[in-house]
Amino acid sequence: MKPVSNEFDRLRVVLVAARNPLNIGAAARAMSNFGFPHLRVVNPYTAGFREARSAVGASALLANAEECKTVAEAVADCTLVVGTTAVRHRELQHPLRRLEYGARLIRKQLGSDRVALLFGSEKFGLSNATLSHCHWLMRIPTCEGNISMNLGQAVAVCLYELIRDGKAARQTEKVKRAAAAEFERITTTLLEAMRASGYLDRRPIADVEERMRRLVRRLNLPARDAVVWLGILRQIVWKLRSEKPRAD
Amino acid sequence: MKPVSNEFDRLRVVLVAARNPLNIGAAARAMSNFGFPHLRVVNPYTAGFREARSAVGASALLANAEECKTVAEAVADCTLVVGTTAVRHRELQHPLRRLEYGARLIRKQLGSDRVALLFGSEKFGLSNATLSHCHWLMRIPTCEGNISMNLGQAVAVCLYELIRDGKAARQTEKVKRAAAAEFERITTTLLEAMRASGYLDRRPIADVEERMRRLVRRLNLPARDAVVWLGILRQIVWKLRSEKPRAD
Repeated sequence: MKPVSNEFDRLRVVLVAARNPLNIGAAARAMSNFGFPHLRVVNPYTAGFREARSAVGASALLANAEECKTVAEAVADCTLVVGTTAVRHRELQHPLRRLEYGARLIRKQLGSDRVALLFGSEKFGLSNATLSHCHWLMRIPTCEGNISMNLGQAVAVCLYELIRDGKAARQTEKVKRAAAAEFERITTTLLEAMRASGYLDRRPIADVEERMRRLVRRLNLPARDAVVWLGILRQIVWKLRSEKPRAD
Repeated sequence: MKPVSNEFDRLRVVLVAARNPLNIGAAARAMSNFGFPHLRVVNPYTAGFREARSAVGASALLANAEECKTVAEAVADCTLVVGTTAVRHRELQHPLRRLEYGARLIRKQLGSDRVALLFGSEKFGLSNATLSHCHWLMRIPTCEGNISMNLGQAVAVCLYELIRDGKAARQTEKVKRAAAAEFERITTTLLEAMRASGYLDRRPIADVEERMRRLVRRLNLPARDAVVWLGILRQIVWKLRSEKPRAD
């Protein structure tokens, strides 16, 4: 992930009336994983929140979470307020966007302004009163059969989509492949082993060199593996050649 | 999400040596959210797994999870085996792909073949012995400062990327906007209210009609809100007109 900390510093993840301290902790962990430092908690179940905050290993992020009395207070400094919801077909009071598109709009806004991303309680989601503070709603594209996600997982998925880098999509940290010369050495040694073992006497192959070259090429070996294979084959050839011919 | 059940039926989510029953349950929940029905569990901490499986509300998915003795057994029927890892800079034994790209390759393979997606234990990730069963590795692009994700959240994020629909990205379930005629009625009524209230006497505005029309247009009202605003303004105009002029 490229550090775009200024942008991500502008997001406020707002948990409204979260009940389960494990879920608050999980939300904080996902935020830390994806580089969003600012958590606000509205009206949490107090004992639960204190528990989460003081848990062994609780992050600085959780310790620094702001506790707000009202949703209005938690979103006051944000120019865009987005609610998350699992629901999709109820009468819409707000535009509803899929996460893939909604996150793009949020990222754009984060370029200059603070954005609040609201998550509701585990049981009831966001209330209508809370939703009335939102500009629009966003849903994670879950299955019809089980639309409701765990709070910590929903936070993780939303934040992942925000940091997702579609352009980096083709990057692979690649293993160095073997070069043609190494393939050729392996092919040659393999042919020697086939001859020395009597394989070709028992099963003659037309155009055997070309066929074996293609066979070896298809292995598409990493450079370091090529060295290992060549060593194994050479040892086999050496052993085959040094064997005394059986008396028969 | 479009049902592409055949494809998703071919994925095997494999939890290797998972310890925490809550995490096994969370993994199962994310699978159910995103429509991947087949879970395999290798060598789980037995008591924990039995607990998760028999928990109240445990899904059918968890009850149907296959318990395997070895990783070899868990991936035997798969043509592609992908391990997940948080690590990024250790000496690479495998090609390492970012989730955005890796998921694309997995989806392609799922078009015809079974694919195993492996997740390691909460504490240690996947062992080298387990990794040796993998064709390549995939990492979620987490921050340098905190790369290690919670198991249930990692499963959720990976499966989300698999079902993610980049092409559906611009879909918005839109609220019906007000038509031009409604804006015009509001503009007219607003002007009446401004005149009747004496606003224009106190603060004369050049080109007032055009200015107010633009002001109203910028509200970009949903159709249903336009009706409400018009009603409010009409009532105000009616009240202003019916007020007796003050005696002065």
